[in-house]
Amino acid sequence: MFESKGRVEIFKRIVEVISVIVSEVKFNIKDDGLHIKAVDPAHVAMVELNINPKAFDEYSANDTELGIDLDKLDSMIKLGKGNDGIEVTYDEESERLIVKIGNLVRRMTLLDVSTMPDLKIPNLQFPARVELLSDDFLLGIKAAQSVSDYLVLTAESNSFELSAGTQEEINQKFSKDQLLSLDCKEKARSLFSLDYLSSMIKGIRSGEKLTIFLGNDYPVRIEFEILDGNGYVAYLLAPRTEIE
Amino acid sequence: MFESKGRVEIFKRIVEVISVIVSEVKFNIKDDGLHIKAVDPAHVAMVELNINPKAFDEYSANDTELGIDLDKLDSMIKLGKGNDGIEVTYDEESERLIVKIGNLVRRMTLLDVSTMPDLKIPNLQFPARVELLSDDFLLGIKAAQSVSDYLVLTAESNSFELSAGTQEEINQKFSKDQLLSLDCKEKARSLFSLDYLSSMIKGIRSGEKLTIFLGNDYPVRIEFEILDGNGYVAYLLAPRTEIE
Amino acid sequence: MFESKGRVEIFKRIVEVISVIVSEVKFNIKDDGLHIKAVDPAHVAMVELNINPKAFDEYSANDTELGIDLDKLDSMIKLGKGNDGIEVTYDEESERLIVKIGNLVRRMTLLDVSTMPDLKIPNLQFPARVELLSDDFLLGIKAAQSVSDYLVLTAESNSFELSAGTQEEINQKFSKDQLLSLDCKEKARSLFSLDYLSSMIKGIRSGEKLTIFLGNDYPVRIEFEILDGNGYVAYLLAPRTEIE
Repeated sequence: MFESKGRVEIFKRIVEVISVIVSEVKFNIKDDGLHIKAVDPAHVAMVELNINPKAFDEYSANDTELGIDLDKLDSMIKLGKGNDGIEVTYDEESERLIVKIGNLVRRMTLLDVSTMPDLKIPNLQFPARVELLSDDFLLGIKAAQSVSDYLVLTAESNSFELSAGTQEEINQKFSKDQLLSLDCKEKARSLFSLDYLSSMIKGIRSGEKLTIFLGNDYPVRIEFEILDGNGYVAYLLAPRTEIE
Repeated sequence: MFESKGRVEIFKRIVEVISVIVSEVKFNIKDDGLHIKAVDPAHVAMVELNINPKAFDEYSANDTELGIDLDKLDSMIKLGKGNDGIEVTYDEESERLIVKIGNLVRRMTLLDVSTMPDLKIPNLQFPARVELLSDDFLLGIKAAQSVSDYLVLTAESNSFELSAGTQEEINQKFSKDQLLSLDCKEKARSLFSLDYLSSMIKGIRSGEKLTIFLGNDYPVRIEFEILDGNGYVAYLLAPRTEIE
Repeated sequence: MFESKGRVEIFKRIVEVISVIVSEVKFNIKDDGLHIKAVDPAHVAMVELNINPKAFDEYSANDTELGIDLDKLDSMIKLGKGNDGIEVTYDEESERLIVKIGNLVRRMTLLDVSTMPDLKIPNLQFPARVELLSDDFLLGIKAAQSVSDYLVLTAESNSFELSAGTQEEINQKFSKDQLLSLDCKEKARSLFSLDYLSSMIKGIRSGEKLTIFLGNDYPVRIEFEILDGNGYVAYLLAPRTEIE
C-alpha cells in the first residue's frame, strides 16, 4: 500500500538522480520512506537513494515494491512545475501507479519486480573523506573531459586533486582550506572513466554539498542530500585499472 | 489595393495561427478586414481567420487576393520584435508585397491565386459548447501524446473530459465549475488524431480563452480571439472513426 | 616571455573574433600588446586584431610567437564567466601555455609556428567610409540571407545601402542622418558573398560601432573596438565579381 501527496519537485529529483544510472528501477516503499538501489547495465556505477516521509505533505505506506519505467514517470512529471501539487498512489486492484497533477491523471503500468532482485551495495572502507561544494567539482570534471577519457582523483593529508591528460593536461588542486573538510589518513589515488563520471554528475545540482570518499585503486563514493535534507543520495563508481 | 501600418505582432500572429495548417495561403483583403480560410493537404483540419482593420494603426483596402508563402513572410517578420512598426503594402504594378520594418524593405513575390479556390467552411450544428483557458487544455493534449496517437473529447451536462490510451491511460476531467462555461444538451463524444491536434494547438498561446464545440463522432471546432479581440480564429478538425 | 592576468572576457572575445575566420592562429605577443593577423583557408577573408596591454590587469611580455588551437583554448575559456579572473602564461621550458581559472589549470600544447608565416594585410585606399551601429547592419545581412547568396553594398554621397536578390528583393537604405557618419567622395559599389559575410559578423556583438570602408568592385573593411577600447579588430573581405 502506498499513498502520497507532495510537490512535483520530489519526483523530478528522484528521476534526475536515478536516471543517470538506469532507466528501469524498483522503488522499495516502506513505512519509513522510499528506498531505491540501482546499478548500471555494465555494473560499474551504483546509486542509492532514500527519501524520508517528511519530504511529502502526506505519506502512508507499508511494504510495497514498484517497478518503475523512469522515462514514463518523467513524461508525466515534466508537465508540472516543481511547486505544483502531486498525488502518487498505488492502486493494488488494477496494479497501476496513479499520478495526479491538478486535474490531470495518469494511470501508469508497472514493471514486473520479480525480475528485479534487491541490490547489495558493497560495504567499503575508505581511507579518505573530502567535503566540498558541487560547483567546483562539476567544473573540474567538465574541464577534464576536453583532454582525456580518464580522471585521477587524489587525496593527501593537505589537498584534494583532480587531474587528467598527459600531453594536454588539466589539473584542479584544492588545498585543505579550499575544502569544507578533509580527512585523509594515507594518500588515496584512483583512476575513473570520465564517461561514467560525467553522466553521473548530471544528477548533482549546483550548490549541493558533496562528501567524497576515496581509496587507493578503489571505488569512489559521492554522497549528498536533496529535498532540504529529506533525501539522501550516494553514487558509487568502480575504478579503472591504470595502464602503465 | 492594400496599404497597412501596424505592429509586427499582427503578422507574427497570423503566421503562427495559419502555418500550423498550411504553408501557402490566400489572403482575402477587403474594406472590412483581412480574411483567411485554409485546409491542410489531407483535408482533415481547417482554419478560419479574420482580422479587423482596428488591429492596424492605418488600414486601407478594397478587394485584393494575395497568394502568400508563409515561410517567406515569416523570414522577414521574425527580423522584427512584436512591437516594432511594420508597413505592408501591395504594389499592383510590380505585383509584389512590400514589407517594411524600420529601414529594411522586402519586395516579396506572390503565389498565383487562380489555383487557390475559395474554401467553404461547412456549416455544422454542435450539441455541446465548452469555454476554458488554453493552458489546461494544452497540457492535457501534451500528456495524452505520451500514451496514445488518439484523444477522446467528451462533454456531458456537468463535465468535459480529455482521455487517451488503453493500457497506459491519461485522463483530464473538468467539472462544470472548473470551466468558464459549459452548455451540453446531450452527451457528445468524439475521437481525434493527436498528430493533427498537437500541431494545431501550436497556434494557440498560453492564457487564451478557448471555446470548444463538440458533437458525437463529429468534428471539433476551437475558437479564440487574438490581437486584443481584433482577430478571430477558428480551427476545425474532422473526427477519427473508433476501431472497436 | 609572456605572463598575464585579467578577466576571462579578454580571451572569450579574442576567440569569438578570430574563430570566425580560422581555427589555428599565431599570437604575436610583444611588449606593446598582443597582435593577430589571419586569413581564411580560401584567402577571401582576413582579420587583424590588436589588444593593448591595458586590457589586462597585469601584462609582461617580450617577443613571443605562440601557435594556438582556438577550439582548445575555447574549451577552457568557456568554463569561466566573463568576469572571472584568468592567468595566462607561457612556460618556455615545457613549451606549454598555462591557463588558470580559479584553481583549474590547463597546460596546453602549442602549434608549430614555423609553418605559420606572418601575414601581410594589403594596404588599400577606400573612397568611402561609413560609421553605423552594428545592430542595423547585422539585421540587414540576416534579411539578405533569406533571398540571396550575394549582397551589394553601395555608398553614395548621401546614403549607404545593402541590397540583395533579384526576383525576391531585400533593401536596406540608410540616409546620411541615419548613420553616425558618412564620407563618400565617389559612388562605391561592391558585391560580396553572404556565406563569408554572415560568418564574419558572428564576431561582432550588438551595440558595437562599426566603421565600414568601401570601394568600387573592391574589398570591404569593417573595423570596430572591443574590450572598452583596449582592443581593435579589422575584418577584410574580397569582393565577388558580378555576373552580368
